[in-house]
Amino acid sequence: MTILLATDFDSAEQRLWLELLQAALPDERFVSDRQAVDDATIDIAIVANPPPGALRGLANLRLIQSLWAGVDKLLGDPSVPPQVTIARMVDPAMNAAMAETALWAVLSLHRGFFTYAAQQRARHWQPLVQRRADEVAVAVLGLGQMGRAVALRLAAQGYRVSGWSARPAELASIHTHTGDDSLGPLLARTDLVVNLLPLTPATRGLLCARTFDAMPRGASLVNLARGAHVVDADLLAALDRGHLQHAVLDVFATEPLPADHRYWLHPNVTVLPHAAAQTDARSAAAVAAANVRRVRFGEPPQSLVDRRRGY
Amino acid sequence: MTILLATDFDSAEQRLWLELLQAALPDERFVSDRQAVDDATIDIAIVANPPPGALRGLANLRLIQSLWAGVDKLLGDPSVPPQVTIARMVDPAMNAAMAETALWAVLSLHRGFFTYAAQQRARHWQPLVQRRADEVAVAVLGLGQMGRAVALRLAAQGYRVSGWSARPAELASIHTHTGDDSLGPLLARTDLVVNLLPLTPATRGLLCARTFDAMPRGASLVNLARGAHVVDADLLAALDRGHLQHAVLDVFATEPLPADHRYWLHPNVTVLPHAAAQTDARSAAAVAAANVRRVRFGEPPQSLVDRRRGY
Repeated sequence: MTILLATDFDSAEQRLWLELLQAALPDERFVSDRQAVDDATIDIAIVANPPPGALRGLANLRLIQSLWAGVDKLLGDPSVPPQVTIARMVDPAMNAAMAETALWAVLSLHRGFFTYAAQQRARHWQPLVQRRADEVAVAVLGLGQMGRAVALRLAAQGYRVSGWSARPAELASIHTHTGDDSLGPLLARTDLVVNLLPLTPATRGLLCARTFDAMPRGASLVNLARGAHVVDADLLAALDRGHLQHAVLDVFATEPLPADHRYWLHPNVTVLPHAAAQTDARSAAAVAAANVRRVRFGEPPQSLVDRRRGY
Repeated sequence: MTILLATDFDSAEQRLWLELLQAALPDERFVSDRQAVDDATIDIAIVANPPPGALRGLANLRLIQSLWAGVDKLLGDPSVPPQVTIARMVDPAMNAAMAETALWAVLSLHRGFFTYAAQQRARHWQPLVQRRADEVAVAVLGLGQMGRAVALRLAAQGYRVSGWSARPAELASIHTHTGDDSLGPLLARTDLVVNLLPLTPATRGLLCARTFDAMPRGASLVNLARGAHVVDADLLAALDRGHLQHAVLDVFATEPLPADHRYWLHPNVTVLPHAAAQTDARSAAAVAAANVRRVRFGEPPQSLVDRRRGY
């Protein structure tokens, strides 16, 4: 049987991944060009943002292993065979990278480092009032693999961390909340909101005027999940009227962020180029290879996507 | 007896500290104006950058309690009575603030957040290569209270942390080094240098061309200790020729940093206004009060300065 590698990688990236996967699975045959083999021989697809239709009609497909953690684009492609098991990338190295970015954003907001950067450009010397970490309330939205890693990392630094998720979750030293009714009251006592929700019909546009209004004046937003969680016009309005202090945005409705977008030069917006937690080919290839081996040995693969939930 | 509060605070700060100290020590008499009492009644001075000569001739002084961690200015004032015990401020809240700033700087350098900020100003979308924390070698210079807090905090995030100090120090999970001969070889395998040394004749100007040349090309410097540790011309030269990638500077030879200093607008320098770890009056007043009580009960005060060592 054959493993199809279907990605939007450039040729150097494609070569790197093929080398790493082949080294981890020396007995497997990999192809990146579907035309090179008989469709019937392809039983596993390893994918990263595959072009729409890339998996259409693969009758013998048993596993789609995503190299990315988010699978919302994949699930939005109607040509993906509906019965095939889909596995997300869950890689501790990627969770750690996400926790680093979230911690950097929270430290920057808590200790005023974005303000100091603006002051530097104006050659202005002004220390700010310094708060202790335990005086800063952080709410982490989404308590999946990444949300949990972020919440625990922040709690370990002494922040007052709460978590919110669609399904009940328990996490040591984190106050967790579930359900729509709990979100407003939670936001009302939050200084910094860190979004790590999956993108589903229920979470699309969740970060909107209503949500921002629920947050206290001077609160800030860190969005490390998906651009479509945010209603951009509402966020800009909340920043412009000074209700929200700052937004750190790693993800956008359109990526790369268009050159004329107001976010680029807004003084209270930090733009990151979808770099909060990149897949690390070295560890992720090993994770993907382990799932392939499970299928070959007749064991269930790990980190399966629930298509009804949408993640 | 009387406690003299000798500081360079503005009147609001002075009032806050007096209130906190009086609340912690209700039976003590405090003065901030030495003229208001007989010199002979002053037996304790609580100081924060006191004007030169502020303590001259106080014959009955038994304890000088600094509200700052660094006492190099105090020791440089020849009018400070030479036999009097001096105590530095050692406050866990201040150590935590320093660890936060060091961690923010290390995360910023490790994950490219200064580069992303520059890219944002140019509306340039470009993810950078992402390294794991355990691929980043950090050297913490100085393993006093603050250096140790910083080294442990960085090690807890997975960084490869080494420490260097004048006297041998042992620290769990940190490789420690001592002595001039070990510094060059340590720097040669270091990506990020975080300076938390005390300022003494031996450490003044330690961060100079020779030190920077010992660091590998592309290394960066974080100076959170004293401006006089750095030979500014050498640092600017190392940055300008691209040998060092970036410097995060919280402290300067002259503070506030003069408006015409090249550091302000250098693209590879981050300027902070001596705000890495400010004394938190709430906890520091309690620390100072505890030392006053020790003196009153005939016990030795804590965190004493060794004048010969200079810190």
